[in-house]
Amino acid sequence: MQTTTNWSALLGNTSPLRIGIAGLGTVGAGVIRLLETNRELIAARAGRAIEVTAVSARERGKDRGVDISGFAWEDDMTALGSRQDVDVVVELVGGSDGPALTLSRAAFAGGKGLVTANKAMVAHHGLELAKAAEAGGLALKFEAAVAGGIPVVKGLREGTSANQLTKVYGILNGTCNYILTTMEATGADFAETLVEAQALGYAEADPTFDIEGVDAAHKLAILATIGFGVELDFANVVTTGIVAVRAADIAQADALGFVIRLIAEADVQQDADGPKLLQRVRPCLVAKNHPLAPVDGPTNAVVAEGNFSGRLLFQGPGAGDGPTASAVVADIIDIARGDVGAPFSMPIAQLASLGPAQPGGRMERTYLRFTVNDRPGVLAEITAAMRDANVSIESLIQKGRGGDDGEVLVAMVTHEGPEANVARAVELLDGSDSLTGEPLVLPIIA
Amino acid sequence: MQTTTNWSALLGNTSPLRIGIAGLGTVGAGVIRLLETNRELIAARAGRAIEVTAVSARERGKDRGVDISGFAWEDDMTALGSRQDVDVVVELVGGSDGPALTLSRAAFAGGKGLVTANKAMVAHHGLELAKAAEAGGLALKFEAAVAGGIPVVKGLREGTSANQLTKVYGILNGTCNYILTTMEATGADFAETLVEAQALGYAEADPTFDIEGVDAAHKLAILATIGFGVELDFANVVTTGIVAVRAADIAQADALGFVIRLIAEADVQQDADGPKLLQRVRPCLVAKNHPLAPVDGPTNAVVAEGNFSGRLLFQGPGAGDGPTASAVVADIIDIARGDVGAPFSMPIAQLASLGPAQPGGRMERTYLRFTVNDRPGVLAEITAAMRDANVSIESLIQKGRGGDDGEVLVAMVTHEGPEANVARAVELLDGSDSLTGEPLVLPIIA
Repeated sequence: MQTTTNWSALLGNTSPLRIGIAGLGTVGAGVIRLLETNRELIAARAGRAIEVTAVSARERGKDRGVDISGFAWEDDMTALGSRQDVDVVVELVGGSDGPALTLSRAAFAGGKGLVTANKAMVAHHGLELAKAAEAGGLALKFEAAVAGGIPVVKGLREGTSANQLTKVYGILNGTCNYILTTMEATGADFAETLVEAQALGYAEADPTFDIEGVDAAHKLAILATIGFGVELDFANVVTTGIVAVRAADIAQADALGFVIRLIAEADVQQDADGPKLLQRVRPCLVAKNHPLAPVDGPTNAVVAEGNFSGRLLFQGPGAGDGPTASAVVADIIDIARGDVGAPFSMPIAQLASLGPAQPGGRMERTYLRFTVNDRPGVLAEITAAMRDANVSIESLIQKGRGGDDGEVLVAMVTHEGPEANVARAVELLDGSDSLTGEPLVLPIIA
Repeated sequence: MQTTTNWSALLGNTSPLRIGIAGLGTVGAGVIRLLETNRELIAARAGRAIEVTAVSARERGKDRGVDISGFAWEDDMTALGSRQDVDVVVELVGGSDGPALTLSRAAFAGGKGLVTANKAMVAHHGLELAKAAEAGGLALKFEAAVAGGIPVVKGLREGTSANQLTKVYGILNGTCNYILTTMEATGADFAETLVEAQALGYAEADPTFDIEGVDAAHKLAILATIGFGVELDFANVVTTGIVAVRAADIAQADALGFVIRLIAEADVQQDADGPKLLQRVRPCLVAKNHPLAPVDGPTNAVVAEGNFSGRLLFQGPGAGDGPTASAVVADIIDIARGDVGAPFSMPIAQLASLGPAQPGGRMERTYLRFTVNDRPGVLAEITAAMRDANVSIESLIQKGRGGDDGEVLVAMVTHEGPEANVARAVELLDGSDSLTGEPLVLPIIA
């Protein structure tokens, strides 16, 4: 039954688990604060004490609100990977490459376990790191890399492990969700809401990774790998951000019974030449009675649909030092318990290598919004393009001047049909001088 | 790092994990179907094959839609605990005592791991069973005992393990939630809705355990033990069912911006003589913007609030053979992986033994509904009782004849105040011939 090691740990027969932390920003300080605040409880649950022995960061002197004088200091964080008094390296530096990756490789080379909150590094180099962990019989854990404090990596790795998942999707970026739900509440447009979000700390000074959907794509690629047993394929996540979404679109969606959310979605579809992985991040219209519709502010939520479990929802704070520290320390406790195994739920050699799916064949209802010149024939031109591309229109609204910048908006919802047809219709209108800007195309999730 | 056993399992160096299943009802058949349907996937994730070797049930010949001819048969299920070809016993018989408990004891006596879906047995005998598992270094897992397919036992045991939980609460009984949300949708009263639920299979022929809140109390006691690190104390769960909830109450709640849900809730409060455990199951008014409000039909949902994680929500199907089998097999996979440890997240010896809390001191807003005789002075009598008990009334509605059975209903919402005052007010009215029935008192969750 191979349980003895776990139990011996739980019955307190083992020495403390010794932690080396690289990166002492808000999350690193949060981890230290958490380990202190809940020390006894954590020792009881882990079956052994968890002790920070060494730390590394850019500036040693900086005030972080936590006392680090009791920990050994390394100017070169990579050295944490070879310290004799470190069992597990906690990487909280960030960045897909550079120091974080160098440290992670050093940790495995030094026979340490690795806990990281670094979604970019896991999305880009997760397979390499998992192979190194596998080869060394070492721990690689990254609960904090996806959806902050929500235990969704464990939820898929342990909770739905008996299931063939049919679909994994959700709201994985708190910044975008804050912006979209604030636009919803205030009627304000994207630009001013972003500025407000930055002022309130919900968006970074350079928000590109968030608002362009890259951050959500990192997390989606990780969830898809665990959920479907496929190799990480971040490069093929089709990603659209929220920059083009206007207050007028949110108002139209509301009138039609929908909200707009940035949805990250992955599933496996059978193409002519076998199963393919479809991974997409894009703003969608979400029906108001869908479990993801009420998810507002910086909250994250993940839906996993299994062939036996049915539809499961995991929801909670998607970021913040407290929730992220909670996920990091949960991983440390797992390691202390001896609950260590394949980071992506099965050995790397058994992960399937699927190519990217061609989404064109999918049937969807779609919301389209055009900004047009107010002159005769424009509607005829648009509707003709729809007809020629075999797109069936369910409803159409033309919104006259007084909308954004006095432009005329034409918004429509299509009947369910192949995505490719909608793309074709937009193509047919490409370059038309009736249009004053790029059309917005949002799929509808009911 | 104690990871080698896990990895050796994951790298396929181990023999199959051999399962003996007791109880072949819909869940037992579901487990066999799941192990067959997802066989390869499960072997990859478990790191080894999982084989059913022996089964036991009441009737051998019965058609269950699955082929059991390949498994050894035991007429006496207790014998599964001593078979040499069984590593893990799966108990799907049910009942807090009797055969299920006898089998579980036999399993540990025989050095087997135990996976059970039996909430009643775990709520009543979980400590004894966990001690036996601990003593033998054996697995005891019961994900399926709480909230069907939702991995909330793992969610609290592994997901929030770094946190001091402040509160665990949720919707833990699908039958009650189906009835209440159906009453909400149809306006029908309790009795007829129950009959309909029975016809549709959402309520059992004898629904007592469900509608009286006992089933939810079993689950709550288990979650409280894991979440707070306290000894199981099912006996002290204060339980009120949904039988007294009328269509008129749901209509009043709706008018006030609330829905009515059966809420199971546990927390630890500091009483004069130290920390005490408060466990309650009762119908509550839930604000429509609360994450539990949209939870309808047989769906379950659990909210866990941690001191670092913040508020986490776990939601999904609360029952059914598929979701329950998904939870049972997830436990089996954990055992195959070697992820085995303290069933209640810490060793039994370290669970705190708290007495039950006195709820009277809690501050709550409350909904009260009286059925009264339509005659002068009744309102004066009720409002005088409120005044004398120091209960401050926020709003009051008298609903004349034409309501249920032509009775007169008086419904009110109080300002936030001590629960004890409301109880006192109801006491003052006890025996008054103005009242035609027991008052209904529902706390408000905002």
